[in-house]
Amino acid sequence: MASNFFGQIFRITTFGESHGAGVGVVIDGCPAGLPVTQEEVNQALVLRRPGNSPYTSPRKEADLAEILSGVFEGKTTGAPIAIFIRNSDADSSQYASIKDLYRPGHANFTYLHKYGIFDDRGGGRASARETAARVAAGAIAKKFLAHYGIFCTAYIAELGGIEVAPQDFSQLETLQSKTYSSPIFCPDVEAAERMMQRIALVKEERDSLGAIVACLAKVPVGLGDPVYQKLEAQLASAMLSLPATKGFEIGSGFNASRMRGSEHNDLFDRDESGNVFTRTNFSGGTLGGISTGSSIFFRVAFKPTSSIKQPQETLNVTGERALLQFPTAARHDPCVAIRAVPIVEAMAALVLADAVLMQRCSNL
Amino acid sequence: MASNFFGQIFRITTFGESHGAGVGVVIDGCPAGLPVTQEEVNQALVLRRPGNSPYTSPRKEADLAEILSGVFEGKTTGAPIAIFIRNSDADSSQYASIKDLYRPGHANFTYLHKYGIFDDRGGGRASARETAARVAAGAIAKKFLAHYGIFCTAYIAELGGIEVAPQDFSQLETLQSKTYSSPIFCPDVEAAERMMQRIALVKEERDSLGAIVACLAKVPVGLGDPVYQKLEAQLASAMLSLPATKGFEIGSGFNASRMRGSEHNDLFDRDESGNVFTRTNFSGGTLGGISTGSSIFFRVAFKPTSSIKQPQETLNVTGERALLQFPTAARHDPCVAIRAVPIVEAMAALVLADAVLMQRCSNL
Amino acid sequence: MASNFFGQIFRITTFGESHGAGVGVVIDGCPAGLPVTQEEVNQALVLRRPGNSPYTSPRKEADLAEILSGVFEGKTTGAPIAIFIRNSDADSSQYASIKDLYRPGHANFTYLHKYGIFDDRGGGRASARETAARVAAGAIAKKFLAHYGIFCTAYIAELGGIEVAPQDFSQLETLQSKTYSSPIFCPDVEAAERMMQRIALVKEERDSLGAIVACLAKVPVGLGDPVYQKLEAQLASAMLSLPATKGFEIGSGFNASRMRGSEHNDLFDRDESGNVFTRTNFSGGTLGGISTGSSIFFRVAFKPTSSIKQPQETLNVTGERALLQFPTAARHDPCVAIRAVPIVEAMAALVLADAVLMQRCSNL
Amino acid sequence: MASNFFGQIFRITTFGESHGAGVGVVIDGCPAGLPVTQEEVNQALVLRRPGNSPYTSPRKEADLAEILSGVFEGKTTGAPIAIFIRNSDADSSQYASIKDLYRPGHANFTYLHKYGIFDDRGGGRASARETAARVAAGAIAKKFLAHYGIFCTAYIAELGGIEVAPQDFSQLETLQSKTYSSPIFCPDVEAAERMMQRIALVKEERDSLGAIVACLAKVPVGLGDPVYQKLEAQLASAMLSLPATKGFEIGSGFNASRMRGSEHNDLFDRDESGNVFTRTNFSGGTLGGISTGSSIFFRVAFKPTSSIKQPQETLNVTGERALLQFPTAARHDPCVAIRAVPIVEAMAALVLADAVLMQRCSNL
Repeated sequence: MASNFFGQIFRITTFGESHGAGVGVVIDGCPAGLPVTQEEVNQALVLRRPGNSPYTSPRKEADLAEILSGVFEGKTTGAPIAIFIRNSDADSSQYASIKDLYRPGHANFTYLHKYGIFDDRGGGRASARETAARVAAGAIAKKFLAHYGIFCTAYIAELGGIEVAPQDFSQLETLQSKTYSSPIFCPDVEAAERMMQRIALVKEERDSLGAIVACLAKVPVGLGDPVYQKLEAQLASAMLSLPATKGFEIGSGFNASRMRGSEHNDLFDRDESGNVFTRTNFSGGTLGGISTGSSIFFRVAFKPTSSIKQPQETLNVTGERALLQFPTAARHDPCVAIRAVPIVEAMAALVLADAVLMQRCSNL
Repeated sequence: MASNFFGQIFRITTFGESHGAGVGVVIDGCPAGLPVTQEEVNQALVLRRPGNSPYTSPRKEADLAEILSGVFEGKTTGAPIAIFIRNSDADSSQYASIKDLYRPGHANFTYLHKYGIFDDRGGGRASARETAARVAAGAIAKKFLAHYGIFCTAYIAELGGIEVAPQDFSQLETLQSKTYSSPIFCPDVEAAERMMQRIALVKEERDSLGAIVACLAKVPVGLGDPVYQKLEAQLASAMLSLPATKGFEIGSGFNASRMRGSEHNDLFDRDESGNVFTRTNFSGGTLGGISTGSSIFFRVAFKPTSSIKQPQETLNVTGERALLQFPTAARHDPCVAIRAVPIVEAMAALVLADAVLMQRCSNL
Repeated sequence: MASNFFGQIFRITTFGESHGAGVGVVIDGCPAGLPVTQEEVNQALVLRRPGNSPYTSPRKEADLAEILSGVFEGKTTGAPIAIFIRNSDADSSQYASIKDLYRPGHANFTYLHKYGIFDDRGGGRASARETAARVAAGAIAKKFLAHYGIFCTAYIAELGGIEVAPQDFSQLETLQSKTYSSPIFCPDVEAAERMMQRIALVKEERDSLGAIVACLAKVPVGLGDPVYQKLEAQLASAMLSLPATKGFEIGSGFNASRMRGSEHNDLFDRDESGNVFTRTNFSGGTLGGISTGSSIFFRVAFKPTSSIKQPQETLNVTGERALLQFPTAARHDPCVAIRAVPIVEAMAALVLADAVLMQRCSNL
Repeated sequence: MASNFFGQIFRITTFGESHGAGVGVVIDGCPAGLPVTQEEVNQALVLRRPGNSPYTSPRKEADLAEILSGVFEGKTTGAPIAIFIRNSDADSSQYASIKDLYRPGHANFTYLHKYGIFDDRGGGRASARETAARVAAGAIAKKFLAHYGIFCTAYIAELGGIEVAPQDFSQLETLQSKTYSSPIFCPDVEAAERMMQRIALVKEERDSLGAIVACLAKVPVGLGDPVYQKLEAQLASAMLSLPATKGFEIGSGFNASRMRGSEHNDLFDRDESGNVFTRTNFSGGTLGGISTGSSIFFRVAFKPTSSIKQPQETLNVTGERALLQFPTAARHDPCVAIRAVPIVEAMAALVLADAVLMQRCSNL
């Protein structure tokens, strides 16, 4: 079943495996006339790249994207934009010893049962490597959104139980620059320090950590379509399509379930120029699935990395008990959520780009 | 933009407003040969119906569904199944006094800005009334799933901060019958008692409460498609498309972000007959977006009902400050999540029915 | 498999059977603010209605459409517009004697093999009755197109081998009024006279006739999307989705296969005001699947009505030889193409409405 | 607007331009377990390749396809299959002299007006080069179909007014081998001889010819979905999405419009083993849009190649009159329909592969 595409008007289709030729994306529906360069795509990929810091996987990925189509003399032509990122540092030999074992927290059990075949070299389509294609596409989506003054930024909001201090949401560009200057994408320097200590400790114990990524977006009123394309429904779908995600909440999120209506309702008010705003933003920036003009604010829960260096009891594909021990050389992130920050941002950008185009069709 | 449909192969399109002729649904893609009766659809609607208990809105909706097409001599024919539920108790006059005011927590502000027009009689498409169409469709989806031994059930897991005791997930039918014998769809009698007291109190204070709905499903291995149609992505999209939802989590959910990999990984094991299972189910029943065969388990956060009887500061559509006071006669649920229980169940059934059909296309 | 929908942004989903409760359509994606009345929809249905003249079936269909949703105070709201046309004159008893026979040229053989079940009262979904829903939707699409000065009109171009004289395509409104004043939708009075004589003769011989419907549309430059949503691909799909159609051609059509490039190429020129046009229009108004601004011109071939009053050798559902004799009371069109004229027009309007909205997403 | 994809379950998305890096396709939804090799794809491409004979363009395209994903150890894994064909012989310098002229019969006028930008090196997305991606995808689709005994073959049925003699449709494999042994894909040796003479003559006159391609398929009963996914609607859409096509007809096609019902109805009969068949096949293998089990038979009209070496009056992009003279070195097919034969076959295979998967979802 065709299921590797996302979006209606601004649509991406991704392909590729972690240990095959590479990963790629076709962006179908990007409007013509947008200035786009290969360098911009590669800059976006650098952020997601493993091996950037001791807090992410030391696996080296050159991640050099090639734009194969859709851009002519520096501008999009309206034709599909295909981007391919060739795999360079995919050493699949290390997986040989464990290729017949079900890996806890991994997809090889379910893929094998679903398809009767599994690309046992890496994670196949379930690998986080697939997300490089999303980041490449997201770079184009962000360029498109920037044209309309729409901007989104994500960051580590909580890691291993450590929360960041409340951030100033009125200056998203500042928030982003603080975030991207942190080796773990955490805008709160003090909290980041403690998180890195926690990571170092856990790594030593050959274990891993979960985290929460927050994302904010500055958007105009009117994005999102009733009723099954509500903006939060699209965002939730986008986020839960990411590997290792376990939850999504917008605005007040799960806390809303413990609040009263009189607290939770965001009251409408206006400023001196007559601009309407809400005094609070528990809604997280949407009402009835349509953006209010307040900041979109949502959070995504990531489970701890499933690949850990401790021995784990499991079964092999013929059903016999076995012990899974990832090879010493295997390189894993101690906390996948860190690298997920630019990915969450990319998926948010893809949702918003699609919503901007959908919005053009709402009225005469 | 066409956005009122859900599903790929088993697809619904809903229509209708709270204060128009009625609401309805077209189910396109239901396989032929399924026994279906109008009575079954109506029985499902009774559960969602307001006015069932003092804990839900006293608004009376006859909710008599008529199957307009697609069923011949008691069986589906493969043709689209249209179901229409005519509105009978839609008194829109009560809204006259407040029709020009932005309602906090409601969609009239965003709809008006998006479309330049708003059906000010009720909530239009944003009304919870639309969900009756989902429940009707869900009844057909459940019939289809039952044919394959797939079953899902939802319940109130937390309300106004009161949590239910852990439930036995090995017997979902029992869990469902306990749930549906409760006036507030809560399987824990003792917790339900306290919840009802809390509701009574809050109602008196002209306020409302939020809650969390949990949902479980018994499914075979293999449902869900990589990568953008992961089962949890589809479920998240389905749930966040419901009015008043603020969050979705599967399995360990947001708690996963505070766990370690060594705790969180569900270890594979086998029983005496050689059946593979996982010792724990933090994953919530999916790995890589594909069902493992363990119970699907997810939770949905609902905000407190936005319509409250307290006066609220707001603006009118011309931007002047005003006080919103819902008319005394207006009937609202003190906690929308209660009636959402059968709706969550219906949406889960629609996702699963679609996944069952998608799964048929995975192999030669 | 969901397959009863058409269009991407302006999307219709139809439902209903010839001998069930009725037929209907949900239009999802019609922009807000369009003035629409139930009367306009019913006026469009009158044109398609059988029983209008001795040259179409005497079956009486009240065809009273009810708009169930999506219109508030005379204007569309952006919500789905559901329209239902209840069946009134569906006498299925007449089919009792032949219900177990495969009908030559009909779909009961294929439906029965595909679905294992067939609504044997009428033609089920394969009945021409389904097209009433398309005409209702087409009426809304035409309203939308009129807002942009886009207009389309169809007519009988050939019937029983008799061709109409060349028509003046510069005044499409005039062409339409000539067409709709003819009992057989033929703008050429003299040819129409001969066609009606031919029909009368064939009817007497209990036989039927095929015909060709031509359709023209006045559109701006730029409609149609590369490469699988070329305007002619969408039109071809729309036309071949109609019952009894056997062919589609645009512009020069099959004649193009006998021409040379030097004849066929439409040379670009400009008028005194600098407007670009092509000296000829063999292309039929598109180049590369995108409208040139010249008239869209296409033709659709209809087979002779399959239901004829002559006895026909066939089999019954258990494989025994049998003689099919439609009951004397059965009412069939001697030439289905006549009533197809407003249907072709409706489908063309639906394609163009979708294309207008798609076009909004082409550029920054 | 996303418009470069085709198919619902077995879905292709194509990308690339004639004078960019190359063209490619992502096949999303191909079932797992299908043996596929890069060689098979390349063999299919050889057939479509220009430069094969004096009757097609001498432009050399290496057309070496690389499978980038979705195949592991010689079998499909259920993951998307990306195929890329790098451009090697794309000399765009020759277009420099004419890059600012509207080319009659070409898409540069419409693309420029739609997008405000045009890849003026070659035909961009409108180039026949895009069809290489379709042929690559079609090779995979054919492999899939072969698994179910489904087979399709196309051939030149008429060229420059010369028709082939009636072919024996009972042995499609034989028909295909006769076709593919002809330099112009014409199974009738004698007719082919005359066609080649005609081509030689026309080439000398710096002109081009149109033609008709016929296609046949051997399929089981039940493929095709009512009502907008009728098999003929999907085929028509597929064919009219090909460059240079002007018409599509199935079975009796346009001739049906001149027949009577008593002639046209295909009477049901059975053979000695009780197999049901129709005595004639005017329907072309479908009834109600669903395959009957008789051969699918359809024809596609191609216009003469638009690029001719004669000078043509035209305008430049600023609206001034100009003379278009393709450079002497430019290489064009004298009749595009010849190379279209394997492309028509590929598109038919894609439609049928999708229909086979859709059909799995029709019943319980």
